Amino acid sequence: MATGFELDRRIEAGTAHVTDWPLCQLRLKDDARFPWLLLVPRLVGASEFTDLSAGDYEQCMAELLAGTRVMMEAVRPDKINVAMFGNIVPQMHLHVIGRFRSDAAWPGAVFAAGDGPEYAAEAKAELVKKLANAAARLRP
Amino acid sequence: MATGFELDRRIEAGTAHVTDWPLCQLRLKDDARFPWLLLVPRLVGASEFTDLSAGDYEQCMAELLAGTRVMMEAVRPDKINVAMFGNIVPQMHLHVIGRFRSDAAWPGAVFAAGDGPEYAAEAKAELVKKLANAAARLRP
Repeated sequence: MATGFELDRRIEAGTAHVTDWPLCQLRLKDDARFPWLLLVPRLVGASEFTDLSAGDYEQCMAELLAGTRVMMEAVRPDKINVAMFGNIVPQMHLHVIGRFRSDAAWPGAVFAAGDGPEYAAEAKAELVKKLANAAARLRP
Repeated sequence: MATGFELDRRIEAGTAHVTDWPLCQLRLKDDARFPWLLLVPRLVGASEFTDLSAGDYEQCMAELLAGTRVMMEAVRPDKINVAMFGNIVPQMHLHVIGRFRSDAAWPGAVFAAGDGPEYAAEAKAELVKKLANAAARLRP
C-alpha cells in the first residue's frame, strides 16, 4: 500500500505530523484559529473515493470516524466539520476540523476564512501530543 | 429508522427531492452554479458521525460513495467535493458537489461563494431526472 507514497509538499509545508494509522497519515494543520486534522491515505494516485479499493475505502471511513473521535476527545469542540476537496492539491486528504461557537469563522466554513496565524511552537507541540495520545487510544 | 424523521425546513426550502436510498434522502441543492447533492440520513437527532450506529455509519459511507458515483455519471465533473458541517442546520446532511475547472468558485470551496441563482424550472427537472436515473442504477 505505502510503496512509492510521497506526501505532497504543499500538504507537508503547512502541517505537522501527528501519527500514522494503518491507512492514513494524520497531520495537524498549522492554523492557530482552528484545531484541524488532515488524514492523508498513504496511497499513490488516489484523488476521489472511487479511486480506492473497497477495502481501502472501508478503512478510510473507519479512520475518518476515528479522526472525529480523536478531535472530540482532544479538544471537545461544539461541532465537527469534515471535508474533502482536492481542487488544488489532488493527493487525497480529508479535513476533520473542531469548531467552536466562539471561533473566528463560526458558523461559516473555515474554507471561507483565508489563512490564519501559525501556532506558537509550544502550543503546537502540546496539541500534537494531545492528538497523538488520543489517536493511539482510538487507532482503528 | 425513519420513525419520526422530519426533514429540516431549511434544507427542504433550498433543495429538490431526487430519491430515497435505504438510509439517506438525496436532494439537489437549487444553486444553478454547481451540481450539488445533499444526502440526508433519515435519522432523528443525528448530527455527528459518532451519533450513528455502526450499521448506519457503514450504510451512510456506502451511500456517500454511491453519491460520488451518481454525480460522476450524471454530470462528469472534473472533481468531486465532499463536506459535512452542520454548524447552522444540525440535522446531519452530507454535501456531494460536482466541480468544474470552469465553475464560478474554482479552485476555491463553494462554501466561500455565497448564494447563487436558482435553476430554471426545466433545467432543474432535467438534472433531477438525470440524477435520479443514476441513483436508481447505483443504489447501494
